[in-house]
Amino acid sequence: MPIVTIQITREGSTPGASAATAEEKAALIKGVSELLRDVLNKPLTSTFVVIDEVETENWGRGGLPVEKFRQQQSGQAPE
Amino acid sequence: MPIVTIQITREGSTPGASAATAEEKAALIKGVSELLRDVLNKPLTSTFVVIDEVETENWGRGGLPVEKFRQQQSGQAPE
Amino acid sequence: MPIVTIQITREGSTPGASAATAEEKAALIKGVSELLRDVLNKPLTSTFVVIDEVETENWGRGGLPVEKFRQQQSGQAPE
Amino acid sequence: MPIVTIQITREGSTPGASAATAEEKAALIKGVSELLRDVLNKPLTSTFVVIDEVETENWGRGGLPVEKFRQQQSGQAPE
Amino acid sequence: MPIVTIQITREGSTPGASAATAEEKAALIKGVSELLRDVLNKPLTSTFVVIDEVETENWGRGGLPVEKFRQQQSGQAPE
Amino acid sequence: MPIVTIQITREGSTPGASAATAEEKAALIKGVSELLRDVLNKPLTSTFVVIDEVETENWGRGGLPVEKFRQQQSGQAPE
Repeated sequence: MPIVTIQITREGSTPGASAATAEEKAALIKGVSELLRDVLNKPLTSTFVVIDEVETENWGRGGLPVEKFRQQQSGQAPE
Repeated sequence: MPIVTIQITREGSTPGASAATAEEKAALIKGVSELLRDVLNKPLTSTFVVIDEVETENWGRGGLPVEKFRQQQSGQAPE
Repeated sequence: MPIVTIQITREGSTPGASAATAEEKAALIKGVSELLRDVLNKPLTSTFVVIDEVETENWGRGGLPVEKFRQQQSGQAPE
Repeated sequence: MPIVTIQITREGSTPGASAATAEEKAALIKGVSELLRDVLNKPLTSTFVVIDEVETENWGRGGLPVEKFRQQQSGQAPE
Repeated sequence: MPIVTIQITREGSTPGASAATAEEKAALIKGVSELLRDVLNKPLTSTFVVIDEVETENWGRGGLPVEKFRQQQSGQAPE
Repeated sequence: MPIVTIQITREGSTPGASAATAEEKAALIKGVSELLRDVLNKPLTSTFVVIDEVETENWGRGGLPVEKFRQQQSGQAPE
């Protein structure tokens, strides 16, 4: 009876989107539940998934808020 | 000095309510703090409680967002 | 379908015990699941509980590891 | 830069195993990182995964420690 | 590659502020990332920080929602 | 009354050490508690710190267990 917590920044993955869509969230829930079934034989119904969307101002990397970190890293692949 | 985290879906427990009420949250805080005092002798003041309300679209079970899971299970007790 | 996480220091609640006993853990699981049923109408089977035991050296309060904090506070109720 | 936390009971998925194997853990890490890349366009290197193995005595469901819950449910698919 | 989660109540640290400011959050991210570099030699870029702001109604101490706990403790230093 | 959770891999920061030492943990607890006092005016006694040491086999990055990720990245700064 696994619990999976997925923490992501609250922002869209495509132009114009301001957050993950309901379809993207459903795909994450489906995919990770199937992964636990396939790897550890956990029945789908026994896996709980929680998606935690974090404001970009509340996420840090490299000692900086994430948007400043990305500016600093620009020229590299976005993260 | 325990820390208790209670994760629930953001929805009401009675018709018309869209979330747990302040009274329900206070009852959770009181109840779980008293439980830790009674079972492990932890003083009330040393227990921290955090209630984390999760949008139903961000909660998954059975490989589905929770509202679709409940529709699939309908006829069974609601969860 | 709530998830409750209870974080406690790994130590006994009675002389001679070095950790919470299986009976104490079962009492925590039972008590918190019943609390969610009573306050929010959540069926017992839909509540998951995880107890996380943390070494005292890994728990801090007052800017100190918890055992030093307790020595500093001695004369007050233990936490 | 997502963070995924996977909480599972510490027990084997096959007879004789007492915990998830290193190969199973690697498969979880690979699978969930690829899922975030495929669904949200997150580069593999920006996803962190933490697997948290919880003793069965520390995991509760249905108001019971999980092994007692499973005995109560026997006849159903294991969880 | 540490992950640091900072949970705080959503409220201001100065009169008129209703939440931690972007500058305060940036200072937390910078400070804790430098701490991990200085104490454990972790490169700045490998530390992730997540700040989780919790409504005061969702935070409990002493068996009470935190604002009632503070009223009860008034005369002592605010927490 | 903040709660800070610091997740690190269980390994030493110096040759011969297999984990963070008690002194390093105390320095993390002290440093982060002082940071919250300095930035948000939180009294030292109201900050809880939990250090969570994770086996390297249970930590993933880049779709790989962390030790394999580091081998893949060798030539870069260690993380």
